[in-house]
Amino acid sequence: MKATMSFDHRIFRDPATGLVVDLEHTAHVDESGLGPALAAMAAIEGGAIANQDEGRQVGHYWLRAPNRAPEPETADEIRSVVGRILRLNAPNCNTILMIGIGGSALGPELAIDALRPSDGRRFLLIDTVDPRGMARVLGEVDPQTTLVLVASKSGVTVETRQALRIVEATFARAGVCFEDHAIAITAPNSALAELAHSWRDQFPLWSWVGGRTSVTSPVGLIPMHLCGIDIEEFLTGAREMDNWTRHPVESNPAAQLAGVWHSANKSNLAVIPYCEHLRHMGRYLQQLIMESLGKAYDRDGQAIHHGLTVYGNKGSADQHAIIQQLRDGPDDVMIHLIDCGTQRTDSPLLSDAADLQFALMAGTRSAMIEVGRSTVSITMPQLNSKSLGALIALFERTVGLAAELANINAYNQPGVEAGKQAAALHLAQIRMVQDALEVLPLTAEELANKLDMETATTWRLVTHLGSTGRAVTALGKSPSEDLFHAPVKSAK
Amino acid sequence: MKATMSFDHRIFRDPATGLVVDLEHTAHVDESGLGPALAAMAAIEGGAIANQDEGRQVGHYWLRAPNRAPEPETADEIRSVVGRILRLNAPNCNTILMIGIGGSALGPELAIDALRPSDGRRFLLIDTVDPRGMARVLGEVDPQTTLVLVASKSGVTVETRQALRIVEATFARAGVCFEDHAIAITAPNSALAELAHSWRDQFPLWSWVGGRTSVTSPVGLIPMHLCGIDIEEFLTGAREMDNWTRHPVESNPAAQLAGVWHSANKSNLAVIPYCEHLRHMGRYLQQLIMESLGKAYDRDGQAIHHGLTVYGNKGSADQHAIIQQLRDGPDDVMIHLIDCGTQRTDSPLLSDAADLQFALMAGTRSAMIEVGRSTVSITMPQLNSKSLGALIALFERTVGLAAELANINAYNQPGVEAGKQAAALHLAQIRMVQDALEVLPLTAEELANKLDMETATTWRLVTHLGSTGRAVTALGKSPSEDLFHAPVKSAK
Repeated sequence: MKATMSFDHRIFRDPATGLVVDLEHTAHVDESGLGPALAAMAAIEGGAIANQDEGRQVGHYWLRAPNRAPEPETADEIRSVVGRILRLNAPNCNTILMIGIGGSALGPELAIDALRPSDGRRFLLIDTVDPRGMARVLGEVDPQTTLVLVASKSGVTVETRQALRIVEATFARAGVCFEDHAIAITAPNSALAELAHSWRDQFPLWSWVGGRTSVTSPVGLIPMHLCGIDIEEFLTGAREMDNWTRHPVESNPAAQLAGVWHSANKSNLAVIPYCEHLRHMGRYLQQLIMESLGKAYDRDGQAIHHGLTVYGNKGSADQHAIIQQLRDGPDDVMIHLIDCGTQRTDSPLLSDAADLQFALMAGTRSAMIEVGRSTVSITMPQLNSKSLGALIALFERTVGLAAELANINAYNQPGVEAGKQAAALHLAQIRMVQDALEVLPLTAEELANKLDMETATTWRLVTHLGSTGRAVTALGKSPSEDLFHAPVKSAK
Repeated sequence: MKATMSFDHRIFRDPATGLVVDLEHTAHVDESGLGPALAAMAAIEGGAIANQDEGRQVGHYWLRAPNRAPEPETADEIRSVVGRILRLNAPNCNTILMIGIGGSALGPELAIDALRPSDGRRFLLIDTVDPRGMARVLGEVDPQTTLVLVASKSGVTVETRQALRIVEATFARAGVCFEDHAIAITAPNSALAELAHSWRDQFPLWSWVGGRTSVTSPVGLIPMHLCGIDIEEFLTGAREMDNWTRHPVESNPAAQLAGVWHSANKSNLAVIPYCEHLRHMGRYLQQLIMESLGKAYDRDGQAIHHGLTVYGNKGSADQHAIIQQLRDGPDDVMIHLIDCGTQRTDSPLLSDAADLQFALMAGTRSAMIEVGRSTVSITMPQLNSKSLGALIALFERTVGLAAELANINAYNQPGVEAGKQAAALHLAQIRMVQDALEVLPLTAEELANKLDMETATTWRLVTHLGSTGRAVTALGKSPSEDLFHAPVKSAK
């Protein structure tokens, strides 16, 4: 008799959504910081300036419970916007083309791939500025029957603005009025809001919604609704999870899960949904968690270089890819397995497949537990709008609490700025190098000397000019011997 | 004047493929183990038993240079199979449906997404056993115009066999003869080879081809060819990279890159291709690298729990997701940026987009170098069959050499077995629990006692039975109070 009375003391089950969070096989949780973390969370929900670097409130919880917004005007605005979204329609469009990147792409991609009914509108996404990549998506588009959503909170995201210009040109070539087919989702008064004043419509993306927690804002709700997904159920699921994750520490699954993340002290987290329809979950959580928890300094300015690396695709494919290392490799990883339930079926073949899928997940779980990996099992009773909303809200709350435990700001992203600024510099340098090319061939060093730039950088930039036909390249034995000159057409 | 004479002493450029591996900003490489590692590689190419656990040769290098195979019969067979693939056609089919998982899915998915011409056949993949996931793919299939490829080296991969049964049933329902539309790719004499004797065709997957290095075998070549991709160029690129990566240590980019991996001593590797068409590269390399290098024991039996965690999606989307942590978080990660060049264009808009894409990549590079991350830049002159073949072969060789440096077997996957065996056990237990259900409700503990099983496991299994309609569940306040009984229909 191996049975005990208490097999379920670490299994948390939500009466409202039916979601189960099983922490039976995880690190012992040090609960000491969790009370203050929940208090901090309550303050955030009450309208505290949670993102102190940017002086911003953090209000994604209000999106599904407007009555919790600290100002009645905010509550009214949320309700009014959700109402407008529910009334949105695009009678002559069979395709939704979304332009967005990061938080304005990963959430819609996840939710629509997971939930779109087979008779819903087709969803296409441009989350790149790669010309070939955009061309491939646009090759699928008939402007006449396509509604374009352009999402950028700041309204000046460079990739989104560049992609927008290219989509506009595609509509112009097809003789279709872009403005009639375009909806902007952006901060009121942003540059994009200004540009979009003559578009079909526009919706606000409020300053208190962070990109990585924007899926219950218009960024997620508009494309979801237009693709036939029940956004009210989605919001309900998130709201019910928010209710559950306000419980006291001992019965709060998000607090306990944040405690596991903190107490396990592992650098990596593998998230494996055993569900084809959640194949984008790993990438969604990668952004939500890594951008929130990957921070150089704590809130007192101490250098801590905190982080939690997230990866994982889907079961059981991952058993043939990453499980080997998860079991045999370094003891630096926690595992989260997500079960999406199965639909009932009369087909013995499908029933067998469901059993096999379940057994493969359970087998991975056993194999991980056997070697001592902290293994969390999350079970959704079934995959639908409500349970996905709940699942996302669970992780949103857990991330916020984990940041409190680490004493970091979960809501800023200062490390992204350096790359943006360097990109702007390199963009200017491309033009400088192009202008410095002469009729006579020069080496990268000679070009660099002309421009007082670094030679290696100059070589990289002029090589890019060569690959796009704006420099003529004669390869030498090594890069330092390469010669570059201006194309004849543009010779001065 | 910041120019120096030697900016390029760590930039490796292949005269044959034009591929550039820039190791300027990486850890100092300890070259001491690289000579022996190259010698070991030469022995593998000569037919040594590289995978000693399984008594197998490792011959993926022969696939692109049959004259290097140790036995003339092997060389002849490779040539003959490639010839048969080149002659393959499916005149009445517009869709290729591949059934495979792990190595039989990730390579074809990567290569076909990267290279398929827009007029090539459509490629669909079933790499799951999830009923909803399979149903979604099959909903896109017209059996009449679909050619099915079934790839499993062992021929007994459970997911592939289960999916095969479901696809067969779909063909039967449509009144289309499955056997006429199916090609098997499997080890000669495998159970699948036996099953497929009456199919349209079958191709060998030799014992000396590992799943994660099978993309230049029939597993990759057949679907690629049928989707309109030039597989001869693909093989040529791989062969030319193989030639380059046989160079002596000082001019061998794979040896130097393996040296970087080893010397940098980082647990994580972020791979970011700035190219929409390589969006599956991170997942492909995740399998290739983690399954090869994630090992519990070295070849002398010492416990080392070695590994290298690989992740990354695509630039510049990743700048809005993981770059925050890569720059500000723990100093545990190397970065590999992959540039796929750009096509020349007369469109100023596309040219601007290409410049922006390049500048974003260069900006990320600068931001990573600034904080001391080992940053490798790989440049493909352009993305085509030849350069992708070369890129893949570069990583194949690097992985092999890195395994030599760590003294581990890169070619086995013993850690996968435990999960498989546990899955088989749990599959049997599902039936046992189903049979143990009675008309009267029982708790999980009572069921567990009947079966002498663990209570928690029993609760999980009977809950799964409940979700698929084979148990009736009355939820209690907590899982230990849940009650389960047999559905009336099947009550004894």
